[in-house]
Amino acid sequence: MNQSKAASTLVKARLPRGLADRGADEIAAVDTMLTAIRRIYELYGFDAVETPALEYTEALGKFLPDQDRPNEGVFSFQDDDEQWLSLRYDLTAPLARHFAENYENLPKPYRSFRGGYVFRNEKPGPGRFRQFLQFDADTIGSASPAADAELCMMAADTLENLGIARGDYCIKVNNRKILDGVMEAIGLGGPQDAGRRLVVLRAIDKLDRLGPDGVRALLGAGRKDESGDFTKGAGLSAEAIERVIAFTVARRSTNAQTIEALEEIVASSARGMEGVAELRAIEDMARSAGYNESRISLDPSVVRGLEYYTGPVFEADLSIAASDEKGQPIRFGSVGGGGRYDGLIARFRGEDAPATGFSIGVSRLYAALKAIRSPLVARPPHNGPVVVLVMDRDRIANYQSLVGRLRDAGVRAELYLGSAGMKAQMKYADRRKSPCVIIQGSNERERGEVQVKDLIEGARAAEAIASNEEWKAARPAQISVSEDNMVAAVREILERHGL
Amino acid sequence: MNQSKAASTLVKARLPRGLADRGADEIAAVDTMLTAIRRIYELYGFDAVETPALEYTEALGKFLPDQDRPNEGVFSFQDDDEQWLSLRYDLTAPLARHFAENYENLPKPYRSFRGGYVFRNEKPGPGRFRQFLQFDADTIGSASPAADAELCMMAADTLENLGIARGDYCIKVNNRKILDGVMEAIGLGGPQDAGRRLVVLRAIDKLDRLGPDGVRALLGAGRKDESGDFTKGAGLSAEAIERVIAFTVARRSTNAQTIEALEEIVASSARGMEGVAELRAIEDMARSAGYNESRISLDPSVVRGLEYYTGPVFEADLSIAASDEKGQPIRFGSVGGGGRYDGLIARFRGEDAPATGFSIGVSRLYAALKAIRSPLVARPPHNGPVVVLVMDRDRIANYQSLVGRLRDAGVRAELYLGSAGMKAQMKYADRRKSPCVIIQGSNERERGEVQVKDLIEGARAAEAIASNEEWKAARPAQISVSEDNMVAAVREILERHGL
Repeated sequence: MNQSKAASTLVKARLPRGLADRGADEIAAVDTMLTAIRRIYELYGFDAVETPALEYTEALGKFLPDQDRPNEGVFSFQDDDEQWLSLRYDLTAPLARHFAENYENLPKPYRSFRGGYVFRNEKPGPGRFRQFLQFDADTIGSASPAADAELCMMAADTLENLGIARGDYCIKVNNRKILDGVMEAIGLGGPQDAGRRLVVLRAIDKLDRLGPDGVRALLGAGRKDESGDFTKGAGLSAEAIERVIAFTVARRSTNAQTIEALEEIVASSARGMEGVAELRAIEDMARSAGYNESRISLDPSVVRGLEYYTGPVFEADLSIAASDEKGQPIRFGSVGGGGRYDGLIARFRGEDAPATGFSIGVSRLYAALKAIRSPLVARPPHNGPVVVLVMDRDRIANYQSLVGRLRDAGVRAELYLGSAGMKAQMKYADRRKSPCVIIQGSNERERGEVQVKDLIEGARAAEAIASNEEWKAARPAQISVSEDNMVAAVREILERHGL
Repeated sequence: MNQSKAASTLVKARLPRGLADRGADEIAAVDTMLTAIRRIYELYGFDAVETPALEYTEALGKFLPDQDRPNEGVFSFQDDDEQWLSLRYDLTAPLARHFAENYENLPKPYRSFRGGYVFRNEKPGPGRFRQFLQFDADTIGSASPAADAELCMMAADTLENLGIARGDYCIKVNNRKILDGVMEAIGLGGPQDAGRRLVVLRAIDKLDRLGPDGVRALLGAGRKDESGDFTKGAGLSAEAIERVIAFTVARRSTNAQTIEALEEIVASSARGMEGVAELRAIEDMARSAGYNESRISLDPSVVRGLEYYTGPVFEADLSIAASDEKGQPIRFGSVGGGGRYDGLIARFRGEDAPATGFSIGVSRLYAALKAIRSPLVARPPHNGPVVVLVMDRDRIANYQSLVGRLRDAGVRAELYLGSAGMKAQMKYADRRKSPCVIIQGSNERERGEVQVKDLIEGARAAEAIASNEEWKAARPAQISVSEDNMVAAVREILERHGL
């Protein structure tokens, strides 16, 4: 390759839209989170499984690309044998494929968990990425509400294991069958009304953001938003709208009261009452296991936007009070969700397999933990390596052996590998967040000594000492020790600063 | 979704070619490996950084897709703004993009490590996947051979931290500049011979597999392989071929002797001698840090196939004796490699940035550790959860509370969530690799007791006891305890089996 290139042939170094690099602090924090999540999932008997990032597009189901829009929602491309491949857009569709493909060899019910990146070919926005991390647990092959109840309890335990206090989160539970009952009651129960049911579902899903009146507009003629864009509504009658709204606001102060309220609303629908019975079973299981409504709460306003849910749906909400740098309150909302999707396996096997799952939005949860300054995701400000400076470039093997001594003692350490002078090396150590540096000039070497300079203490002293001459005379936070005592001196500094 | 589907509309559940699902044992083993690798990389002062799976195709450099073959080597597709995106095919090109994009804010030299999946749009084969895991460390911004030496020492330490004994691995080091010197000496030094130099490079890279005579053929007129396919050679003269071969076999029993031999071979080339001097510097550093030739060995046969290397190249080889299930010896060969690639940043910044890196092929290393039955990647055969069986489906909340007691005590446990009878539940527990199950029928419940059945001991006893009646009478490995003593009884069983 040439030593230099004309500017015109240079490639601009830039991330594609909607994608992000992650630094050491975020990586360490997310690793800690994943370990905490995994611990609870494993305690509940779930086993890890992993599928690749790519699947045959037809296996993903919803988004079969057509010739005109092969990338609608997902990233898709043709393999050299002309078959369409896609990057997975969630972890549920690949799990359905895995379960169907390995049906004979898997234990049934099949409990599994998996974390991994998913990809969305959508317009990116603030906090809205085209690649992000999900962490899912699913039970396939159990029709029992006990499987749903267990996911709700596990979600609660997981959030607590992530350091979120009881009272600061809530697992909200509803049932799509009750919504189906409401749809029947307002005359939208037939197969010809699938499209309008979806419009109703999406409208209710916006209750949080738009409030009841916004949802009323979307259930009726339609709604114009602040930007002037008009969204066509479901075209329901005023009476139908009020029945839907009454359903969404049927949450009462206890789960038992909510169940009573729901029974009244869907009394006329067998399917609706089936949904209420399932909610009651979940509530019974949770309560007898010690989870009351402050942790697992029945809430008819939760519907989840995805079409494929067929029974109970859940959402994990954070209600922690926090404010951003400008003092504005932050609302975290949902950091996870899921539900029962009995039909998803049928595409492969020709018959439904009962299935239920829960997915944590790891990136969103990380943002929340960071905002509340959770110790789980905090790292000490000086977590860099000890840097051994290089004063005499002909003696680099000497400096390397000092580094080796530190590493042999388990101390994170590195040799300065650049070609800059003393001042730039000190600046480098600051950028590396080093707690201390090792300095050895020719005088020290002859005496078999090193200087150990505490950068944290040094920075504090520098603030206190005004004059530069006074500074030089004092040499604060810097000590001379023999090479043999170097490791002990460094350890003392690390301990002093709690590192 | 419908309860059943016509067979004609069913989607076949299958993984795309060259991709694999991973189970719990492999995931746990690879996690353990990554933790062990990361520990050493961090000890050496490297910091974690992560880039997304997708990059602009032009940022990846080598494989700019053309209209006819947009997927040559990489998976590529057009974004909705017509720009080409690709899945990364290694972790080096994205790092170069990251460094160039964040140049002002990064410490220099910049030490970083990252693990992640890379994707190759190639014909898959046995052990050859289209998605696999790499784990890289790189130092950008240091031209010092100390940076290369350090990567070699770190590679050695990493393999030892993965439980590979000293003597069972070797970090082999060569220098592309010496090869350049050989090329000059045989008249292939000019820019017009870049293509032929690449043919020579690829020929040497096959030395391991084809032996010197196979390489001789590829350096000369060409070579016909067993299948009859003919590969065109570099067309060198007989004398030139012997000079190249002499270079590749110049490894001697000590590094000092190898350096002498290389000096003789490239004495006439300034660039070649520069390469030898760098090797000497690496050898000095390694030796003074305590790494002799049994761990870091100069080996001119190592060239690495990639075009972009500009100086030292390294390879981590395993030499462990192992055999497969049929008793055939397994050769592991290279489990990692890397080298100096000073030109890779220039595409973005117009000037070279000295850079060197080392990459571990995690999947290949995992296969090797599994083949030698490394305890690092082994898991006990009965690592499943304790299963609480359900004898009376109306009392499921009762069984759930037994599960809850076990989990509260930190014991991995689950409720049987299916609808099958006792016998199928026992079979399920076996498939789940459960160490023991909890059984409570109505009689036991009335007495406040449970049966704890040790499945590991039970299986052993079943082998020893011949008659079925004797078996039933003995009820081996099954004890009755009060509900309050259940956790203690389970713990005793887990401890007895070292779980």
